[in-house]
Amino acid sequence: METAEKIIQWRRELHRHPEEGWTEFWTTGFVARQLADMGLAPRVGQEVIDPAARMGLPVPGVEARARQRALAEGLEPCWLERMGRTTGLVADAGPADAPLALVLRCDMDALPLMEAQEASHRPVREGFASRHEGLCHACGHDGHMALGLGLAALLTAPGAAPLRQRVRLLFQPAEEGVRGAASMIAHVAGARHFLAVHIGLGAPRSGDLVTGVGAFLATSKFDVRFTGRAAHAGAAPEQGRDALKGAASALLGLHALPRHGHGTSRICVGRLEGGSSRNTVPASAFMACETRGNTSEVNDDMLRRARDVIAGAAAMHGLEWRLDVVGGAPSAASDAAFADLLARCARDLPPDARGGGCFAPSRIRERGDMGASDDATTLMRAVQAQGGLAAYAFLGADLAAGHHQPDFDFDEAVLWPGVRWLEKVCRELAG
Amino acid sequence: METAEKIIQWRRELHRHPEEGWTEFWTTGFVARQLADMGLAPRVGQEVIDPAARMGLPVPGVEARARQRALAEGLEPCWLERMGRTTGLVADAGPADAPLALVLRCDMDALPLMEAQEASHRPVREGFASRHEGLCHACGHDGHMALGLGLAALLTAPGAAPLRQRVRLLFQPAEEGVRGAASMIAHVAGARHFLAVHIGLGAPRSGDLVTGVGAFLATSKFDVRFTGRAAHAGAAPEQGRDALKGAASALLGLHALPRHGHGTSRICVGRLEGGSSRNTVPASAFMACETRGNTSEVNDDMLRRARDVIAGAAAMHGLEWRLDVVGGAPSAASDAAFADLLARCARDLPPDARGGGCFAPSRIRERGDMGASDDATTLMRAVQAQGGLAAYAFLGADLAAGHHQPDFDFDEAVLWPGVRWLEKVCRELAG
Amino acid sequence: METAEKIIQWRRELHRHPEEGWTEFWTTGFVARQLADMGLAPRVGQEVIDPAARMGLPVPGVEARARQRALAEGLEPCWLERMGRTTGLVADAGPADAPLALVLRCDMDALPLMEAQEASHRPVREGFASRHEGLCHACGHDGHMALGLGLAALLTAPGAAPLRQRVRLLFQPAEEGVRGAASMIAHVAGARHFLAVHIGLGAPRSGDLVTGVGAFLATSKFDVRFTGRAAHAGAAPEQGRDALKGAASALLGLHALPRHGHGTSRICVGRLEGGSSRNTVPASAFMACETRGNTSEVNDDMLRRARDVIAGAAAMHGLEWRLDVVGGAPSAASDAAFADLLARCARDLPPDARGGGCFAPSRIRERGDMGASDDATTLMRAVQAQGGLAAYAFLGADLAAGHHQPDFDFDEAVLWPGVRWLEKVCRELAG
Amino acid sequence: METAEKIIQWRRELHRHPEEGWTEFWTTGFVARQLADMGLAPRVGQEVIDPAARMGLPVPGVEARARQRALAEGLEPCWLERMGRTTGLVADAGPADAPLALVLRCDMDALPLMEAQEASHRPVREGFASRHEGLCHACGHDGHMALGLGLAALLTAPGAAPLRQRVRLLFQPAEEGVRGAASMIAHVAGARHFLAVHIGLGAPRSGDLVTGVGAFLATSKFDVRFTGRAAHAGAAPEQGRDALKGAASALLGLHALPRHGHGTSRICVGRLEGGSSRNTVPASAFMACETRGNTSEVNDDMLRRARDVIAGAAAMHGLEWRLDVVGGAPSAASDAAFADLLARCARDLPPDARGGGCFAPSRIRERGDMGASDDATTLMRAVQAQGGLAAYAFLGADLAAGHHQPDFDFDEAVLWPGVRWLEKVCRELAG
Repeated sequence: METAEKIIQWRRELHRHPEEGWTEFWTTGFVARQLADMGLAPRVGQEVIDPAARMGLPVPGVEARARQRALAEGLEPCWLERMGRTTGLVADAGPADAPLALVLRCDMDALPLMEAQEASHRPVREGFASRHEGLCHACGHDGHMALGLGLAALLTAPGAAPLRQRVRLLFQPAEEGVRGAASMIAHVAGARHFLAVHIGLGAPRSGDLVTGVGAFLATSKFDVRFTGRAAHAGAAPEQGRDALKGAASALLGLHALPRHGHGTSRICVGRLEGGSSRNTVPASAFMACETRGNTSEVNDDMLRRARDVIAGAAAMHGLEWRLDVVGGAPSAASDAAFADLLARCARDLPPDARGGGCFAPSRIRERGDMGASDDATTLMRAVQAQGGLAAYAFLGADLAAGHHQPDFDFDEAVLWPGVRWLEKVCRELAG
Repeated sequence: METAEKIIQWRRELHRHPEEGWTEFWTTGFVARQLADMGLAPRVGQEVIDPAARMGLPVPGVEARARQRALAEGLEPCWLERMGRTTGLVADAGPADAPLALVLRCDMDALPLMEAQEASHRPVREGFASRHEGLCHACGHDGHMALGLGLAALLTAPGAAPLRQRVRLLFQPAEEGVRGAASMIAHVAGARHFLAVHIGLGAPRSGDLVTGVGAFLATSKFDVRFTGRAAHAGAAPEQGRDALKGAASALLGLHALPRHGHGTSRICVGRLEGGSSRNTVPASAFMACETRGNTSEVNDDMLRRARDVIAGAAAMHGLEWRLDVVGGAPSAASDAAFADLLARCARDLPPDARGGGCFAPSRIRERGDMGASDDATTLMRAVQAQGGLAAYAFLGADLAAGHHQPDFDFDEAVLWPGVRWLEKVCRELAG
Repeated sequence: METAEKIIQWRRELHRHPEEGWTEFWTTGFVARQLADMGLAPRVGQEVIDPAARMGLPVPGVEARARQRALAEGLEPCWLERMGRTTGLVADAGPADAPLALVLRCDMDALPLMEAQEASHRPVREGFASRHEGLCHACGHDGHMALGLGLAALLTAPGAAPLRQRVRLLFQPAEEGVRGAASMIAHVAGARHFLAVHIGLGAPRSGDLVTGVGAFLATSKFDVRFTGRAAHAGAAPEQGRDALKGAASALLGLHALPRHGHGTSRICVGRLEGGSSRNTVPASAFMACETRGNTSEVNDDMLRRARDVIAGAAAMHGLEWRLDVVGGAPSAASDAAFADLLARCARDLPPDARGGGCFAPSRIRERGDMGASDDATTLMRAVQAQGGLAAYAFLGADLAAGHHQPDFDFDEAVLWPGVRWLEKVCRELAG
Repeated sequence: METAEKIIQWRRELHRHPEEGWTEFWTTGFVARQLADMGLAPRVGQEVIDPAARMGLPVPGVEARARQRALAEGLEPCWLERMGRTTGLVADAGPADAPLALVLRCDMDALPLMEAQEASHRPVREGFASRHEGLCHACGHDGHMALGLGLAALLTAPGAAPLRQRVRLLFQPAEEGVRGAASMIAHVAGARHFLAVHIGLGAPRSGDLVTGVGAFLATSKFDVRFTGRAAHAGAAPEQGRDALKGAASALLGLHALPRHGHGTSRICVGRLEGGSSRNTVPASAFMACETRGNTSEVNDDMLRRARDVIAGAAAMHGLEWRLDVVGGAPSAASDAAFADLLARCARDLPPDARGGGCFAPSRIRERGDMGASDDATTLMRAVQAQGGLAAYAFLGADLAAGHHQPDFDFDEAVLWPGVRWLEKVCRELAG
C-alpha cells in the first residue's frame, strides 16, 4: 500500500507547484528525480522537445522568471541545465531495443487561475494549496502526472516481473491551449498503442471508467493584431486609422461565419483589447480567438474563413493585421479494439490486498464523448497513421467543483485503482 | 404683360409632362419649339451632349418607353430624330461670332414621385397636375425652364434692342442625382459669366432674392453591388457566400467613416436590397449610396474610403463587388463681384407698366448658403477655372410645401420679376 | 394498368396549373372533382381549415387574382363557393363511424419559380409545363397529390374489398414556408397512424424507399419590419432615424447568435430591403428570416434570441419594429415500429400483372435523415401526442435536377409502385 | 528680475512632481506653501472642493498611494490634513470684502505618460525631469501654475500698490478629462471677470498672444460597462452571454451615429477591453468613450443617442450595462470686450528694467479658435451667466514637441512677460 500513499504525496507536491505551459521547470525536475530514483533514465527539455513545433510560447520574461522560481524552490541545477529553456520529459521502462508497446501521455501544465482560499477547499485545509499566486492545478494534470509516476513505481518495483517490450511515459508541457503535443510527436514513432487519461472529465463520479473517448473537437487557437494610426479624436479624427473599428467589424464577422451543414463548428473571441486613452483614435487592437469543428475539415475551414474576415475587416478600416496560430489539435476517435482491451483489463483487475483498488464492472464503459479539445489527439492521429491503436480514457472522480474552477479538486482515492489498471494494461501489452 | 402670362402657361405645360433625368424628350422638344418660334436655333440632344460624360443612365427600356410616350404626347418626330437617344438643349441669343457674355443654366428633369392628388393642391385644382403617374416636377425645374423661355422671349421680342454679345441658354438634363452637368461642360467654354437660378431654395418667401450662393456640398453618388453564392440555408449554409452579410458590414462601416477635422462630411446608404427567398443564402445585394463634403477634397476622401470599406466588407464574406459612380458635383462658391452685380441689377430694376415685376431692395441679399448639392457647380468651376465669374442665385417664392414633397408648389408670381431681372443682367453684360 | 396511366395524367394536369400556398383554388377543385367521381365526399376550404391557424398569407390581391384565374381555367363555381376564400381538402374512405386507421398527408402548393423553358425539360417537350408564368411544381407536390388520388382510386375501385376502418386523405395547402399544417391539425384527431411521403428527397434514385425519416429540423419563419424617419441626408441627417442601420445591425447580430452546444442551429436572413432614394435617410426596412434547430427547443431558443436582437437593434437606432411569425414546424422523428411495418409492406408487395409495380427489398431502408423542414411534423407530433404512430417516407425517384430548381423533374414511373404500396399499407392497417 | 527666476524654479519643481488628476497632493501643498509665504491665505482641498461634483475619480488605492508619495516627498502633514482626501486650492489677493474683480484659473494635473529619457530633452539635461515613472507634465500645467505663483508674487511684492478689489487664484485639479472644474464652480460666484491661460496651444511661437479664444468643443467623457455570462466556448456557447458582441455592436453603432446638419460632432471609443481566456465566452467588457460637439446642444444630443446605442446593443445580446459620465465641459466663447481689454493691456505693457518682458504689438491677436475642449468653459459659462465677462488666452511658446508628447517642453522665457501682463490686467481691473 506504500505506493498508493506515495501517489497522493506526489500529486500534492505537484499541486503545490503549479507552472504554466512551457514553464514547467520545477515540475519537470521533480518528475525526473522520482523516475531516476526508480532506476529509469528520463530525458528532459531540449533533449526531447522539437523547438520549432512549440506553439503559444509565453511572452518574454515569463520563462526566465519561472526558471528562477524553480531554482529557488529546490530544482537541482543539473536538471535545469539538461532541460535548457524547454520543459517536458520522456522515460522508457523495459528493454531499450524492444518494440515500443505503449506510450502513456501525461500532461504537466497548470492554469493561470487564482486557487480558492477558503478552508472548505481541501488543498487549503490540508496544506497543499498552490504556492504560486495566480496559478493553480485546476484541471487535474497533477493527478495525471501522479498516475504516470505511480505506474512507473509499480513497473520498477523490487520483484516486479521485467517487461518484454517497452512502455514509454511521455510528460507533455502546455496541454492547455493545445500547444505542446506537436513538439513531442517524434516520441510516438513506432508505438503500437497510445493512451491518454483524463481525471473527472465526462465521468464525474469516483469508480467510473470510460476507456474509448471520441468526438473530440478539432481546434485552432490564434491571436489577431490590428495596427492603425493614432490621432486626436477631436481635432483630426480623419487622420487616424481606428484599430478598434477593425476589431469590432472582425468580431461580428467571425461570429457570423456560416454554420456548417455537416457538422459542428465553433468560434470564440475570448479576449479583445485595444486603444489607450479616451480621446485618441485607437492605434492597435488584439484579439485572442479560437475555432473548433467536429472534424478537422470543418475546423480548418473555419480558420481559413476567419483569416478572410480579419483581412477584410482590416482593409475596411485601413489597418495592418497579423494572425498567429498559437495552438491547435485535430479531431480524433479512440480505436474500438483498444478501448475494448482497456475495458477488459479494468474488468479483470482483481482487488488489492486490502480488498480495494479495482473497478466495479458495471461502472466501466467502452465509449464516451469528449465534446471539447485536447492535443493528445495530435499524438493519437500520429499513432493511428502508422497503424497503431490509440485511446483516450476518462478516469471518473468525485469533484469538489468543475474543471477550471478556482475550487476544483478531485477524489484522490481514484488514483490507486487507476495506477493498478494502467499496470495491468502494460502487462497485457508489454509483458 | 403678355409675356408674363405666357411664362406661367409654359411652366404649367412643362409641369403636366414631367420626365426623369435623361428621358426629357417631350420637354426638350417643347422647349426647342418655343425657342425656334422666337427665331433662335436650338441644338438638341446628341448635338450638344457628350455621351461619355453622362452619368447615372436609366435602366434599359426606360428611355425607349419615354421616347414612345413623348411621341404619343405630341413631340414632333423631327426633333426626336435630331436628339437621337439623348436629351438637353443649347440656344444662343446675340451675334454668332460675338463673345459669350453669359451662360444661364436651366435644369429640366422631374422627380420619381407621385404628385399629391388632393384638390387642395393647386396643380390639381387648376388642371395642370402631372399626367405621368409616379413622376412630378416637385423641385421647381419647370419654373427654371419657364424663366429661361421668358428671358429668351424678352431678348427676342419685336423692338427689343439687339445684343452685342452672346447670351446662351443651357437646358441641362438630369440635375437630380447630379448626373447631367458634366456632359455639357463644353458649352461653357469661353463664357465670361455663368448663372444658375433655383426657385424657393434658401429663400422661402416671394420677393426674396439671393444673388451669391455658396457653401455647396461636393457630392458623389454611387451604386454598390455584391455578388456571392446561393445555398440552402438549412442543409448547407457553408456552401453559400452571403451577399447581405457583406452589405450589412459595409453599411455599418460606411456610416462609421471618420468625421473630418476640418470640414463637413456626409454618408448615406439610401437604399439597400438583396437576396430572394427566406430559406436561401442571399447571393446578391445592391446599395445606392452618396457621400458629401464641404470641400471636394473631403468628399473625394470619403469616396476613397468608402471604396476601401466596400472592398474589405466583400473580402470578409468572400464576395465579388463593384462600385459604379453614377453622379457627382464639386463644391463651389459664387464670385462676390458677380453676385454684387446681380444684386445691383435687381435693385435697379424699375417697376413694369403695371407697377410690379420688380424687387424690394431690402429683400435682396448678396450672400447665402446652399448646404446641399447641385451639379451647376461643375459648370461654375469650369467657368471660374478659365477666368470667368460664376454665381448661383435663389429666387424666393412662397411654397405650398417643401421641395421633393408630393404637394410642392411655388408662387408663380415670382417668375415675371425673375425674368425681367435676368433680362436686365443680360443687357448689362451683353448689351 | 389503367390507374397507373391515370396517375400520370393527374400529375401532369396538376403540373400545368401550379398555384402558390393558400391560392390552390384550381388544384383543390380538381382534386375534389376526381375524388367525388370515385364516390368519396371531399370537404374543401373553409369546411376543413382553421382560419386562425393559417400562417404566411399572401399579400392582398393575390388570392383574389388566383380565384379569378382558377375560374377562367375551368374551376366549377360550386367548388369555389364551398371553399370560400380558403383552399385545402379532406376526404375519407371506409365506414364513416369506424376508427381512423391512417391519415395520409399530400401537400398541394407550388413554388414562385419560373419553370425551365428548354425543350430538354420534359414538361416542355411533352406539353405539360406550367401555364402560370413564375410558378412551378418544382418540389414534387404534383406527384404527392397524384399518389393520393391513385390510392383513392385503388381503394374505391370496382370490386375492391371494402375497408373496415377509415383512411383519410388530407390535401394540405401551403407546405412551402411551413405555413399550412397547423390549420388542419383537427383532422388528425383520433388517428392511429399518420404518413407523409416525399418524392425524391433523400432517396435520389427510382426504386429506393425510406420508410422512417427522422432528423427533421424544427423551423420558424418570420418577417421583420423596422420603421424610422426619413430626412435629407445632406442637410439634416440628424433628423432621420435610419431603418437600414437597424436592419444591418440586426442582420449581423442574428448571424452572431451563439451556436448551440447540444445541437444544430440555423439562421438565415434571406431577403432584406429598405429605403427609397439615395439622398434620403431610409425610413423603413424589411427582412425575411428563418431559424432552425435539430430540436424544437433549439429552434425556439433561436427565435427568442432573434427577437431580442431585433428589439435591441431597433432601440440602438431609435426605430419601431415588429416581428411576424409567418410559418413554423417542430422537429420530429418517425416511429420505428410504424417505419418497420411500412418497410415490411413494401417488401411483401407482389409484382403487378405486368410483373412490375413493386420494390426490390434491397432498396428499402427503414431509417433516413431529413436535415431540413416540413410541416408534416406538426401533424406527426399531434398524432404521436395522442398515442398514435407517425412516419415520413422518401419515395426514391430519378431526378432531372434538384428540388427547387427550374428544371426539376422526376421519374413518373415511381408513382405506380408507390400507390400500390400505399394501398397495401391501408389494407394492413384498415383492411 | 529675481521673480522671473523664481517663476522658472517653481515651474521646474512642479515639473519634477507630476501628479494625476485628483491626486495633486504634493502640488497643492507646494503651491499653498509658496502663497502662504507671500502672505496670502490659501484654502485647500476639502475646504474648496464640492465633493459631489467631482468627476472621473481614480480607481481605489491610487489616491492613497499618491498621499503616501507626497508625504515621502516632503508634503507637510498639516497641509495634507487640511486637504483631506481632496486636492485643489483657492487664494485671494486684495481686501477680503471687496468685489471679486477677476478669477484666474490655473490647472494642476499631469498626464499618465512616460516622459522622454533622452539627454536631448531639456528636463533631462537640466535635471528637472519627472521623478514619477509614467507621469509627466506634458501639457504645460506646470507653467500655468508658475504663472499663477508669479502673479501672486508681483501683487504681494514689497512696495507693490495694494489692490482695491479682489483677485482670486483658482488652482483646479483634474483638467485632463475635463473632470475638475464643476467642483469649483462656487468660487467664481460674483466674479466680474474670469480668465484662463494656456501655454503654447494655438500659438506655437514665443512672443505670440491670443486673448480671446473661442470655438471650444463641448464634450462628454463616459465609461461603458457590459456584463454578460461566461460559458465554455466549445461545450456550451449558448449558455454564455457575450459581452464583447455587445461592445462590438455598440462601437460600430456609436461611430454610425448621424452627423449633424448644423454643426460639428465627434465620437470616439478610445479604449475597449473585455473577456479573459480564449476559450471562454467573455462575460464583461469596458469602453472608454467621448462625444464632442461644436455646441453643447450637439454634444448633449450625441450623448443621449450614445446611451440609446449602448442600451440597444446590450439588449441585442442579453447583457446588463451601465454608462458613467466621468467628465464633461460645455462649448463657450470669450467675450470680445474682455479679449480686447486683455489685448490692450498686453500692447501697453512697457519693457521691464532689462528691456524685455513684454509683447510685440504685431504678435497679439484678439481672436483664435480652440477646436478642442477644456473645462475652463464650465467656469466661463458660469461667469457669463451672472453677467460677468470671460476669456481664454493662448500664451505662445516655442515647443520642443506637441502637447501630450513624451518630449513636450516649452520655452520658459514666455513666463515672465506672461506674469507681467497678468499683473497689468489685475491693476486695470482691480487696481
